[in-house]
Amino acid sequence: MFGSVETFLRPQTIAIVGASETGGGGWAKGLFENFAHEGFPARVYLINPRRSELWGQKVYPNFSSIPEPVDLGIFIIPAEAVADVLAEAANAGLKNALIFAARFGEGGDEAGVARAQILKGISERTGLRIAGPNCMGAISLPERLLFYPTPRVRGLPKGPVGVVFQSGGTFQFWLEQGAARGLGYSYAISSGNELDLDMADYLKFLVEDEDTKVIVCMAEGVRRPHAFMLAAKRAFDAGKPVLMLKVGRTAAGQEAARSHTGALATEEHVFAAMCQKYAITLVNTLDDLIEVSLALTAGRPAKGNRVAFLGYSGGAKGLFIDIAETFGLELPDFAPSTKIKLGELIDLGMPSGNPLDTGAGLARRFEVFSKVCKIAAADPNIDMVSVQGQLPLAPGESGDPNLFRNIMESTTKPVIAHNRMSQNVNETGRAFQKNAGIPFLQRLPEVARTLSALARYSELRYRGIVTEVSSTYVYNSGDTIEKVLSDNAIPSPTQRVAKDVSEVGKAAVAVGFPVAIKVISTQPLHKTELGGVALNIQSSEAAIQSANKIEQKISIAAPELIISGFQIQRMVSGLEVMIGVRDDPRFGPFVVLGLGGVLVEAVRDVAFRLLPLTRADVTDMIKELRGNALFGQYRGSPPRDVDALIEAVMGLSRAYQILFGDISDIEINPLMVGAAGEGVCAVDIRTVARQHQ
Amino acid sequence: MFGSVETFLRPQTIAIVGASETGGGGWAKGLFENFAHEGFPARVYLINPRRSELWGQKVYPNFSSIPEPVDLGIFIIPAEAVADVLAEAANAGLKNALIFAARFGEGGDEAGVARAQILKGISERTGLRIAGPNCMGAISLPERLLFYPTPRVRGLPKGPVGVVFQSGGTFQFWLEQGAARGLGYSYAISSGNELDLDMADYLKFLVEDEDTKVIVCMAEGVRRPHAFMLAAKRAFDAGKPVLMLKVGRTAAGQEAARSHTGALATEEHVFAAMCQKYAITLVNTLDDLIEVSLALTAGRPAKGNRVAFLGYSGGAKGLFIDIAETFGLELPDFAPSTKIKLGELIDLGMPSGNPLDTGAGLARRFEVFSKVCKIAAADPNIDMVSVQGQLPLAPGESGDPNLFRNIMESTTKPVIAHNRMSQNVNETGRAFQKNAGIPFLQRLPEVARTLSALARYSELRYRGIVTEVSSTYVYNSGDTIEKVLSDNAIPSPTQRVAKDVSEVGKAAVAVGFPVAIKVISTQPLHKTELGGVALNIQSSEAAIQSANKIEQKISIAAPELIISGFQIQRMVSGLEVMIGVRDDPRFGPFVVLGLGGVLVEAVRDVAFRLLPLTRADVTDMIKELRGNALFGQYRGSPPRDVDALIEAVMGLSRAYQILFGDISDIEINPLMVGAAGEGVCAVDIRTVARQHQ
Repeated sequence: MFGSVETFLRPQTIAIVGASETGGGGWAKGLFENFAHEGFPARVYLINPRRSELWGQKVYPNFSSIPEPVDLGIFIIPAEAVADVLAEAANAGLKNALIFAARFGEGGDEAGVARAQILKGISERTGLRIAGPNCMGAISLPERLLFYPTPRVRGLPKGPVGVVFQSGGTFQFWLEQGAARGLGYSYAISSGNELDLDMADYLKFLVEDEDTKVIVCMAEGVRRPHAFMLAAKRAFDAGKPVLMLKVGRTAAGQEAARSHTGALATEEHVFAAMCQKYAITLVNTLDDLIEVSLALTAGRPAKGNRVAFLGYSGGAKGLFIDIAETFGLELPDFAPSTKIKLGELIDLGMPSGNPLDTGAGLARRFEVFSKVCKIAAADPNIDMVSVQGQLPLAPGESGDPNLFRNIMESTTKPVIAHNRMSQNVNETGRAFQKNAGIPFLQRLPEVARTLSALARYSELRYRGIVTEVSSTYVYNSGDTIEKVLSDNAIPSPTQRVAKDVSEVGKAAVAVGFPVAIKVISTQPLHKTELGGVALNIQSSEAAIQSANKIEQKISIAAPELIISGFQIQRMVSGLEVMIGVRDDPRFGPFVVLGLGGVLVEAVRDVAFRLLPLTRADVTDMIKELRGNALFGQYRGSPPRDVDALIEAVMGLSRAYQILFGDISDIEINPLMVGAAGEGVCAVDIRTVARQHQ
Repeated sequence: MFGSVETFLRPQTIAIVGASETGGGGWAKGLFENFAHEGFPARVYLINPRRSELWGQKVYPNFSSIPEPVDLGIFIIPAEAVADVLAEAANAGLKNALIFAARFGEGGDEAGVARAQILKGISERTGLRIAGPNCMGAISLPERLLFYPTPRVRGLPKGPVGVVFQSGGTFQFWLEQGAARGLGYSYAISSGNELDLDMADYLKFLVEDEDTKVIVCMAEGVRRPHAFMLAAKRAFDAGKPVLMLKVGRTAAGQEAARSHTGALATEEHVFAAMCQKYAITLVNTLDDLIEVSLALTAGRPAKGNRVAFLGYSGGAKGLFIDIAETFGLELPDFAPSTKIKLGELIDLGMPSGNPLDTGAGLARRFEVFSKVCKIAAADPNIDMVSVQGQLPLAPGESGDPNLFRNIMESTTKPVIAHNRMSQNVNETGRAFQKNAGIPFLQRLPEVARTLSALARYSELRYRGIVTEVSSTYVYNSGDTIEKVLSDNAIPSPTQRVAKDVSEVGKAAVAVGFPVAIKVISTQPLHKTELGGVALNIQSSEAAIQSANKIEQKISIAAPELIISGFQIQRMVSGLEVMIGVRDDPRFGPFVVLGLGGVLVEAVRDVAFRLLPLTRADVTDMIKELRGNALFGQYRGSPPRDVDALIEAVMGLSRAYQILFGDISDIEINPLMVGAAGEGVCAVDIRTVARQHQ
């Protein structure tokens, strides 16, 4: 399932193909100089059939002339020339190729796609692994190997962050900015087109690498979802957080989404659900990747989402309150004993609650501020501590870093320092941060997002990832879908089928008024849109009249439709909710929960999770809905039966396992959620038969 | 309406009250040294009854002993001591006092509130103007006067940005960061508690100041809404953009909001509607304030929201596409002729559309990249140009700044440079930016937010601010609200009133089926919650039956209620929308538009505008709704009659003018919006009588 990255990132022998003064705009030379700068941690050979000597080294015409087997060939030659050289190299026993050139079908052009196919063929035939093409190389800091063609990567510090970016240009820039903020790296790979080795392979390598503690990814998507999820699960099991910046909702992805029933689940949503399941922290910006990395490399789990926000700025406090709510953080008040202790230290007249503004006096009395922070950190209502802190641009500007270290060492809770906004960070600041022993984050929204991510990751570590569910339910192959659902906590309303209009009155009386009447046809149809539904019928006469009207309407709107009868259903009231399961072709089955009725699609108030899921997941999904107030006491309606809704979603996921072979999609809309204790009822069930190919 | 700030920010004579080596933790000395550092641009006197000489200057015991009238007294003394000195100063003819001390009732404590009242009394009695208390001073760069007690403000550059912050700590830090990014300032004021001089006064001063071109505010709120709106209108008329960072939804504000019918319009929403009306750019973060200021000081208006996004990074392109959509920016494709020209310059195989990724080749060939940008900027489909650009940390790192200047000078459209993420900016970078002549923005979400703000401000300058509407409609004082609404494009459904159950059948026949029946009572009631409404009644028998049921239900649920009859209404179908007008006690009447029915409050899909408004505003409001897809062709429903909805909102705002004396709130929910051409219909109208005090 995973290709080996070993000889790519930890080679003993390297050959630079296309070695010349100007080759690849100077990239060949840049690579050689980077290896030389580190004292050649691997043996480096040069290949160029038109040269015999370069940079004081012998130049070989090809791979077979090199006196020992080569682990890694770095190709700095035009796209058109790669295939021939690669074939020769494979014959000569090359293990791994790193190909920089672009134009291997990125834009979908035929010539490029054909070139890529040839490389792929060589790889499959010979077992030679390919990194790239269309990439900007990699860096292996434990091996001091810089497979990157400019000197700018030379100063990057070694550390616990492993990096995989599909984008080559952003790759180097992000590494530099991260380093400027205090991040250090183990391995960093620009994966390019991922013709052979892909994100799943690199992720698995980083999970197994001892130097790597946190893994940062930027991707347009993952090529092999199941391999990627497996690697992500291993990262979780190893306690190594994975961060993901997802780039670009591709047109292709959106096109595919439009064909889904409901059109609710775009590629984006399913990808997010996948990240959610595997505890991958999905972020929105390149800057977020830095802030969250800084916080997660600190390595302390949070017991919950309750933050103490401590500072000497009223403005920052005011701004943070609003932001914290947006990111689902709590700012609980301190215990009374904490408040008494704080009151003795902060400026006269300042309230001693959380979030805390000590007053401007403590902006210059850091020892007192540090004491304040230790007291707040010890409060039992608090899970995470965020203290105001600004990195110095010149020594002595921001007090003593040990005061921050003292706060951190006084507690086992995560501690971070927050700055109100962006600021320059220089060598002095980085040294201060290192001595302080806590991450210094910038910008309050990013601080809130980071604390939220930390709490979320900690919670998922506590919950674990569920990958299997056992069900003892036995399914008789003759059972209807209604029966399977009803056996799994999703009852349908009382109903009867009338074969034609003449049977409608009797059926309605048997069901009990008020009833709904729906046309039945063996052909697929949108009942509501064709006028095939009548609601709230109060008597048998009215029922017969309505059935006649439905026949009339359909004979006009869709004369080709054969009406095979009427479904007479007891009207059920409640909150309209939509639940469904679909089988995503890439990431597998996922469940959808949303506010139902016609509005569900228009306001897109929906939540997604990959199967299997737990009751805690369903509770989270309900909370995620913007309109979740509807589940509580609302405008005179009693609270809804949320327990029954949770059981229904769990039941639907079990039922889907049973029906999996026959059905790809199932959607219940509306599912009526009654008042607490009254349960739920599936008013309309739609399924899509599985296409067996 | 406005207090004079002149003697505060442009004094000829200054007295420092509390002058001593350690006074105010060294602040008195800090201020004196800042004046000295600039060579005393004003005459500075020292006051301290316990001293006779300090820092080589004579020290005076009080104001009356100073040999000339003093424009500005700067008070660096404890809160308790201020009142007495201020009284003496006022008697001696002091014109303006700047008071640093806190504890004037910020936390609501009685002693502080009483202290503030005394100061207020002195100000009102004598005409002495007060800045602060609880502030951190100000800076007047045209006068080279630094009313700020630390040397850190000395290096701040003069420029076109005027600043008013209520928060003192954040004030200095923001000024420093803004300067680090290349902003220069005219006047910057920390306004503190605004006991007397307030944001409206400072805003008016900055509007009239010739050096100020852009005005930046950070506020918890505005004390005098009408003065503030008047000053904002003057800023608009003067072509000076105003930026606002609003801090903290105060508990008090939220409490007040809860008492509103519907609870939809919090203080926050009304404040945002006010900003919208007066073209104030409301931002979310301190960093946004910098980015938008940089872009707006550049001074070019945009003709629309169509952006050319030009770079050499595929990652940035992918990230920006998603973000641009979120911020309502368009990325139209280039004209065919543009694409041909671009194709000849960019890397082989790269598509030449917008957003443009030229390929990594042009990352090192800046002259070619500059040509590419000029070609794209000239495209007729484009209103604003965003080019990738990174400020150098060392000279020569990012090419020639003139290449950026060339792009800017080749077009009259706004041009900005974008960086993918945060970066340090030093003196080299600032010089580069200045020579380039365009703002270098950081982080793609902020870039999108800034371009969007630029387009929005430009559009509002084109539209103008409507402050009055003329209506020729004549109102007869005997008209019902239904009649007034119906005369103003908001018809009600056909209806009859039945005095009791016996009249219900006849009334229903007269109205025509299906009908809705609603109980009428002189007492206020929530009809739906009490079971006082029956819908979709198809016959007179059913109508009578339903009326009886309603009577029964209410006699159980609310036996004290006197039923005075039944309203029989023709059932109307359509999309349920809610429209309303409320009179905000601070900012005046505003209109609400949202998706109607029970969901409106739960999912809070609503838009707000202050009155008066234009058709263009209503169109914007509809676009702002998340569920706006419901107004188009949707799930088999034809498009809605949006024109009629727009007319209804315009009509409601006219009707509100007429009813203003009697009614404070009016809400129509649901307003049924029929299919295109079918109009709208007000199914339920609620009003709140105006409380005359």
